[in-house]
Amino acid sequence: MLKTSDIPKKSLALHKKLRGKISVVTKASIKTPEDLSLIYSPGVGAASLAIVKDQSQVDALTWRRNTVAVISDGSAVLGLGNIGPSAALPVMEGKAAIFKRFTNIDAIPIVLSTQNTEEIITTIKSIAPSFGAIQLEDISAPRCFEIEERLSEMLNIPIMHDDQHGTAIIALAGLLNATKLTKRKDLGSVRIVLNGAGAAGTAIARLLLVAGFTDIIVCDRAGIIWRGRPDLNEEKKKLSAITNRSKIKGSLSDALIGADVFIGISSAGALTSDMVHTMAKNPIIFALANPVPEILPDVARKAGAAVVATGRSDFPNQLNNALCYPGLFRGMLDKRVSRVTDEIKLRAAKALAGFIKNPTSDRIVPNMFEKGLHEAMAKSVK
Amino acid sequence: MLKTSDIPKKSLALHKKLRGKISVVTKASIKTPEDLSLIYSPGVGAASLAIVKDQSQVDALTWRRNTVAVISDGSAVLGLGNIGPSAALPVMEGKAAIFKRFTNIDAIPIVLSTQNTEEIITTIKSIAPSFGAIQLEDISAPRCFEIEERLSEMLNIPIMHDDQHGTAIIALAGLLNATKLTKRKDLGSVRIVLNGAGAAGTAIARLLLVAGFTDIIVCDRAGIIWRGRPDLNEEKKKLSAITNRSKIKGSLSDALIGADVFIGISSAGALTSDMVHTMAKNPIIFALANPVPEILPDVARKAGAAVVATGRSDFPNQLNNALCYPGLFRGMLDKRVSRVTDEIKLRAAKALAGFIKNPTSDRIVPNMFEKGLHEAMAKSVK
Repeated sequence: MLKTSDIPKKSLALHKKLRGKISVVTKASIKTPEDLSLIYSPGVGAASLAIVKDQSQVDALTWRRNTVAVISDGSAVLGLGNIGPSAALPVMEGKAAIFKRFTNIDAIPIVLSTQNTEEIITTIKSIAPSFGAIQLEDISAPRCFEIEERLSEMLNIPIMHDDQHGTAIIALAGLLNATKLTKRKDLGSVRIVLNGAGAAGTAIARLLLVAGFTDIIVCDRAGIIWRGRPDLNEEKKKLSAITNRSKIKGSLSDALIGADVFIGISSAGALTSDMVHTMAKNPIIFALANPVPEILPDVARKAGAAVVATGRSDFPNQLNNALCYPGLFRGMLDKRVSRVTDEIKLRAAKALAGFIKNPTSDRIVPNMFEKGLHEAMAKSVK
Repeated sequence: MLKTSDIPKKSLALHKKLRGKISVVTKASIKTPEDLSLIYSPGVGAASLAIVKDQSQVDALTWRRNTVAVISDGSAVLGLGNIGPSAALPVMEGKAAIFKRFTNIDAIPIVLSTQNTEEIITTIKSIAPSFGAIQLEDISAPRCFEIEERLSEMLNIPIMHDDQHGTAIIALAGLLNATKLTKRKDLGSVRIVLNGAGAAGTAIARLLLVAGFTDIIVCDRAGIIWRGRPDLNEEKKKLSAITNRSKIKGSLSDALIGADVFIGISSAGALTSDMVHTMAKNPIIFALANPVPEILPDVARKAGAAVVATGRSDFPNQLNNALCYPGLFRGMLDKRVSRVTDEIKLRAAKALAGFIKNPTSDRIVPNMFEKGLHEAMAKSVK
């Protein structure tokens, strides 16, 4: 078993050894000039002409339909923040390796030298014909919302910001099983406090509403978000209009009194044992800050939590986006989805939750290597 | 032996079977959650942090230094013209397959939905941190000149438009051996007529001048290009200032009288047997139009040509860019070249010519599969 403290050193050594976690291979045999004349000039002209005649032939004659571009501007990477494109590249390569390993997708890591919204949109729109789908990754809020929204309008391939919707799908899946386990049957009466109103927090709030949860209070660094709070940006204004139905004001501590669920996408130590004690009986705690969660699982348990989940692989219930995206993109590519809808996200979350037949407090989501998981996620796409 | 007439059908069938001539593979073993924690979160953070501290570490810890983006807007593809991004994709994939097969480079085909110069520059600048080098491909003149020039200024990785410089390097290599073979020792006294003043023609003229040829006449569809001809665009004006030292005017036929060399990057049938008869004794004919050359080799030979080369694999002396670019990019990546200079191109052409110890009229350049060729091209980069 790998010790947590050894991971950075071992990972660095592995990266040095590999010099790239992915590689390109040639599927065509190239042994003779004749082979060359088939895969390249002059033969390739026949493939090009077939596509000129019928643009949809690009999927029969090239790798496009099996590809996903994993694109980041390096502005909000893991727990590291705005580290720029080069330092973001190992992360994007890691996602590409996961795509290949679990659902055989050819994913290409692309990191951007710009953090300007218009330049990012121009760039992604320009390179889009090369790919079957686009995964946005580690782009900071609020730019990520506009970038994803406008590109979704422009392009006829799925584009999905994983920090938003991947996280939201996993959180919803976990919550569906955690509420089942704690016998909270009426989703509308479950009081949820979301701490963090960035990309992930916003997307989680929206997807929980789609799923039938209605009592959601979102907090940011300044406390509870309420309609009319004078310091809200555009995205938070929108959020204030659809959450906090009881119109309460105050701090995170105020919000948590009597709450059933805490979901943190905030920072280490944001949730204290005392706060957990003020929550409803058998509370559900998702402490997703990385690498150090808002509260450590044993502390939360001791304070009465019925279910605790984190983003970490060394605790039970790892809510990890990689449970979702390989299969979800496989399904979207195979079914020729042109846009990621709320229904697709909801179905994915339900498929992930449903993959666990009998949830327990230590098992509300599966792990990456469970048989049939990624196929089930792919199948969730209609 | 594959019949020329069978190539399109067989190529199309092969493309259908493969659905992509390249694929991505994972180099890391991913069998356990521990493996995942090393190649992705949380371990990958150590690689990112190492790059934050020292940006050059991106080459030790990712695949970047072994990658080339093969980028086209589909505006000038093979003999097919402006066929757009999707139809250009099989061609770019073919180049990527060749990169991998011959010099183990991970090349990524990228086709663009825009043909706007500013958008192309913004896009390529934005994605540049993902790659070790950029090959531009099949972008029409005159936009290709400005795009390549401005990006070369902006970026610190090699960027090279293959239609220009790849073609120029191969043509120069062929010409060095053809002049040697026909005992034209004084390069300055060799009269060269270039038919075609687009991307390739312009680049060939410039590189021949760098190599020591001085008597070059360029023709376009309107005939000989001369300084002050009223219909010249900016690029052709520049060309008129450095070529046609004898300041002649007239048609291609006029230019060819007494010429030693014809290089065509124009169109089928542009050179007639009668024209060849008016050239100097033992003329050299490079008829590079694809797929049908300016003159067929047997016709040119019959009219007195000492050496004939084409772009075709089914005739001797195929002047094929793929002889150059896999090795040239390998060398530029390995030697950490930040810019493609005239010296690099000249050395590459000399390396390619020098690879043939004893040129004959049927062998002025090697073929793709000759042992040591691509290594020699890589080694030419200092």
